[in-house]
Amino acid sequence: MKYTKRTFPLDEIRRFVEPGPIVLVSSAWKRQINIMTMGWHTMMSFSPALIGCYIWPENHSFEMIRKSKECVINIPTVELADEVVGVGNTSGGDIDKFATFGLTAVPAAKIGAPLIAECYANLECRVADTRLLKRYSFFILEVVKAHAPAASTYPRTLHYRGGGVFMVSGKSVSFRKKFKPQNL
Amino acid sequence: MKYTKRTFPLDEIRRFVEPGPIVLVSSAWKRQINIMTMGWHTMMSFSPALIGCYIWPENHSFEMIRKSKECVINIPTVELADEVVGVGNTSGGDIDKFATFGLTAVPAAKIGAPLIAECYANLECRVADTRLLKRYSFFILEVVKAHAPAASTYPRTLHYRGGGVFMVSGKSVSFRKKFKPQNL
Repeated sequence: MKYTKRTFPLDEIRRFVEPGPIVLVSSAWKRQINIMTMGWHTMMSFSPALIGCYIWPENHSFEMIRKSKECVINIPTVELADEVVGVGNTSGGDIDKFATFGLTAVPAAKIGAPLIAECYANLECRVADTRLLKRYSFFILEVVKAHAPAASTYPRTLHYRGGGVFMVSGKSVSFRKKFKPQNL
Repeated sequence: MKYTKRTFPLDEIRRFVEPGPIVLVSSAWKRQINIMTMGWHTMMSFSPALIGCYIWPENHSFEMIRKSKECVINIPTVELADEVVGVGNTSGGDIDKFATFGLTAVPAAKIGAPLIAECYANLECRVADTRLLKRYSFFILEVVKAHAPAASTYPRTLHYRGGGVFMVSGKSVSFRKKFKPQNL
């Protein structure tokens, strides 16, 4: 499935990130492109749009992101569950994951790492801070460009529970009227 | 609703944290106890069990946690949606949130901050690292004791999308057989 995307406001990307979905991280280094599955990430700031994330140093992507200082956080939906599991179970040191899992690499606007076309949203990121990298393998990324559908619906995302089990995002409930405007 | 909880293995708390629920953070300082709603957090390590989280310095809880070096991350279920919104909309500088929202403070085992009895799981945390506090308002917490039901079911959690809208966690899907054991 592919989506018609527009440039998405950076200060609104929390709607994709804060609910905690599993994401696919794409990277590029020395003419190789790669993908990894990632579940340990969080919003850290609206503006600049910062995302913190843990990446295991054993992952092939770790050095690609560290050296290129760029990556894309792609938000897959439940239709991509097999690809999410397959990407997480394999190494970019052994295979071309785009080819193996039939995913389409699309050039990004501001960085060298590719977008994954089949994902609902794509967040182009530059590494903004590496001070926690050595001790915690924790990257602080700045989102510099976001692509997502304009529709007001929400994607059905996958959320990892460990042990091979994913939770699929359920219904949305609005409490808008109960919130103070500054707390929305 | 209250749950019968046991001591939960620290290296398994990712099942509650990684899917990205909104959480209630309880703290204590100088005989005051308080609660805040938090959505920006991530697992950072299994062992020690580390959770990184952003807390807005304007929150009354920020200084309470910074000074006491402790807090509890409580996992509420959908039945507590009104309390989650209410806690997020008010300040502990103005009201006693436990009393206002009818929540029960239970003594923790290892720290001074109280557990919230009505929540599905409770993670007692000590502040482990403050090096990102000044620049990013980001605490690194070590979970030192966890309480949760032994049942193999999963809680129906709330996940914040912004704009007053929550996603309620949906069905679980197992891909256990497709995972390599080391990747579970």
